[in-house]
Amino acid sequence: MTIGDSVHTPTPLRTDHYEFTMLEAALAGHNGDKQCVFEVFSRRLSSGRRYGVVAGIARLAEAIETFRFSEETLDFLRRDNVVARSTIDWLRDYRFSGDIDVYREGDLYFPGSPIATVRGTFAECILLETLTLSILNHDSAVASAAARMVTAARGRPILEMGGRRTHESAAVAAARASYLAGFSASSNLAAGARWGVPTGGTSAHAFTLLHGDEKEAFRAQIAQYGTDTTLLVDTYDITQGIRNAIEVAGPRLRSIRIDSGDLSEMAMQSRELLDSLGAKDTKIIVSGDLDEYAIAALSGAPVDTYGAGTAVVTGSGVPTAGFVYKLVEVEGRPVAKRSESKVTVGGAKTAIRRHKPTGTAIEEVVVAQGRPDRQPGDQDLQVPLFRGGKPMELPSLSRSREFLRQRLISIPWEGLKLSPGDPAIPVIIR
Amino acid sequence: MTIGDSVHTPTPLRTDHYEFTMLEAALAGHNGDKQCVFEVFSRRLSSGRRYGVVAGIARLAEAIETFRFSEETLDFLRRDNVVARSTIDWLRDYRFSGDIDVYREGDLYFPGSPIATVRGTFAECILLETLTLSILNHDSAVASAAARMVTAARGRPILEMGGRRTHESAAVAAARASYLAGFSASSNLAAGARWGVPTGGTSAHAFTLLHGDEKEAFRAQIAQYGTDTTLLVDTYDITQGIRNAIEVAGPRLRSIRIDSGDLSEMAMQSRELLDSLGAKDTKIIVSGDLDEYAIAALSGAPVDTYGAGTAVVTGSGVPTAGFVYKLVEVEGRPVAKRSESKVTVGGAKTAIRRHKPTGTAIEEVVVAQGRPDRQPGDQDLQVPLFRGGKPMELPSLSRSREFLRQRLISIPWEGLKLSPGDPAIPVIIR
Repeated sequence: MTIGDSVHTPTPLRTDHYEFTMLEAALAGHNGDKQCVFEVFSRRLSSGRRYGVVAGIARLAEAIETFRFSEETLDFLRRDNVVARSTIDWLRDYRFSGDIDVYREGDLYFPGSPIATVRGTFAECILLETLTLSILNHDSAVASAAARMVTAARGRPILEMGGRRTHESAAVAAARASYLAGFSASSNLAAGARWGVPTGGTSAHAFTLLHGDEKEAFRAQIAQYGTDTTLLVDTYDITQGIRNAIEVAGPRLRSIRIDSGDLSEMAMQSRELLDSLGAKDTKIIVSGDLDEYAIAALSGAPVDTYGAGTAVVTGSGVPTAGFVYKLVEVEGRPVAKRSESKVTVGGAKTAIRRHKPTGTAIEEVVVAQGRPDRQPGDQDLQVPLFRGGKPMELPSLSRSREFLRQRLISIPWEGLKLSPGDPAIPVIIR
Repeated sequence: MTIGDSVHTPTPLRTDHYEFTMLEAALAGHNGDKQCVFEVFSRRLSSGRRYGVVAGIARLAEAIETFRFSEETLDFLRRDNVVARSTIDWLRDYRFSGDIDVYREGDLYFPGSPIATVRGTFAECILLETLTLSILNHDSAVASAAARMVTAARGRPILEMGGRRTHESAAVAAARASYLAGFSASSNLAAGARWGVPTGGTSAHAFTLLHGDEKEAFRAQIAQYGTDTTLLVDTYDITQGIRNAIEVAGPRLRSIRIDSGDLSEMAMQSRELLDSLGAKDTKIIVSGDLDEYAIAALSGAPVDTYGAGTAVVTGSGVPTAGFVYKLVEVEGRPVAKRSESKVTVGGAKTAIRRHKPTGTAIEEVVVAQGRPDRQPGDQDLQVPLFRGGKPMELPSLSRSREFLRQRLISIPWEGLKLSPGDPAIPVIIR
């Protein structure tokens, strides 16, 4: 039996089969209603990254709110023998009724940071495992990569244009996460419609090829949009393309885009040529497989704006954040897996970040089943996301974006290096 | 203005802003109705892969069928000034009316293989660029990685359990793509509901921790599901866990799962222990960061089933297939970008794969604006997906899965090596 279409997949099926198996066995054994605490954290930062960026919190809140079982969904679960009749009845009334505390969207995280704490019965919490991880792992991976690119760009704007390199829904979330991380706009229209991310874009090589003659293509674009547009000048020959662009648009053309070749060399030659043609204010946008290292390498070139695609939407080598969702407390008793190589600290955690009087972060202190001693400069890291199943109000995406900007100023400067190294600050778990 | 929610994002907004900019300028300049041919192909196989697997064709057909503009979507485009009034009217009536030919889902592709050819007016085809690429790039990346894992597993089944490591919608498509590539089942319930992918799963460490006592947890699971289930034995101590499992379930227990430690060593010790306890038919499932290399390294270990997560859903180091969507023909005239370093061959292509009399593939021959000379053993590679805007009937996912299995038998055996190398067969483009 198949239901719905890929766009309308019910939220509660965006999960793993075993959550329902565990649910059913727990309900049958009368353990489903035990009060539990689950924690979301990452054991490490991959590839020697020095920090991660928490992203997806608003999407998570929305997903949990819509985690309800329609009759159609229940029919599927019954007919496919995922669960038995009694569990179906339990699922029909399901809605999360517990508490969730999270690191704010745009905050930093390090190995062991408890970025989410989920409290409720075992039954209600176990169903949220996969969906919670999918959202936080994806969005945080993109935001973490994007933040490094923003640092590398040293104030120059970056446009996200990678939607075509990732799943069509992931593309929307990736546009949101990269905007959160400081990108200036996205090519993805759905991210504009859904999250208010500024969108932009002008034309591709196909548009020039359609017209055959490059000047004709430029004329068509200028006729429609005026000179406040970007002409793509590298379809045939970049030098001639720039000459054609300025001939058609005049020296007040807003910008040109270069999408191929040695971008550093091309940018320098293009700047000289534009200046010689009197187009001193025409900006240069470069794109083409840019990651944080390529962006950093272009810092000396006369580039005004970067376009980033594949690297940002795929996490620039780290496509998932590595968060896990672990049971840490049952009815007030700390629990933890004990087999070799994957040690988890049991107990619900309280996390603070400690700062110097100057405001520079020193360390995170995470205490299981207790609270850290307070010192001046300490900041609580978790804030309520759900209380008794009710979602709390969230900051706007713009505010979260500014929050991250401030957070990146607060860590020791070594933490902003692109090279592999230790986490920017240690996490002390007690 | 924001619309909808992330689950219900309208299909035609899963696209890039610049497609609408180009559309508008083309319509205004009376070039929008020129007959065009766009081609989807990849310039290379990343990381020395020897073949790629075409996946996502059925999803693409569905997406194009639902590419219609609702009034709500048109309102967004108007209010956000993406396009002007006249274009809105054109979009209101939009439905793709052209022809699309594709490589079959489950076929192989190599650098330059024209895996999709889209024919129609410039205006109707340009809007499909991003969505087409998103679907094919994502699904093919997952299927290509998954197929290598299936080869490495040498007939042992692999379960896909990576949904938590990728975007919650990408997870559904990834489960489908890995099943296409030969995985035996997925943990993702939505993939079961939507695409009929077999799903499975039993329990996590949380279930054992909930019960405190491991034997109690096993008893609860056996009480619900009988001995035809999988017990996770590595929460505390694997040796004791196996003893507990067999004590509770008896020697007819279907399987145990090990999710940590040196999996090769653990599998050997576990097999010995199970045999000594009389559980000679109890299977061993191993999981934990398995990619194609780790799976290959376990070929000598007494493993019955693999569980793969992060690596398969993120393309095992190649998270996107690198397909591009290029204009190759305008009103019968071949066109191509000519600037350095990215050369595209113009003209609509016909592709055949040439075979030895034994059935082994030798090469692909791709001819622009013509047809290859036919030889015995030649096979046409493109099949119709749309004709005059009407979708053609597609093979079932099971049939595409079997098609890929046969295709992998047809390439020279070196093509199945995991090590970096040349494409399994060359593509001759004329």
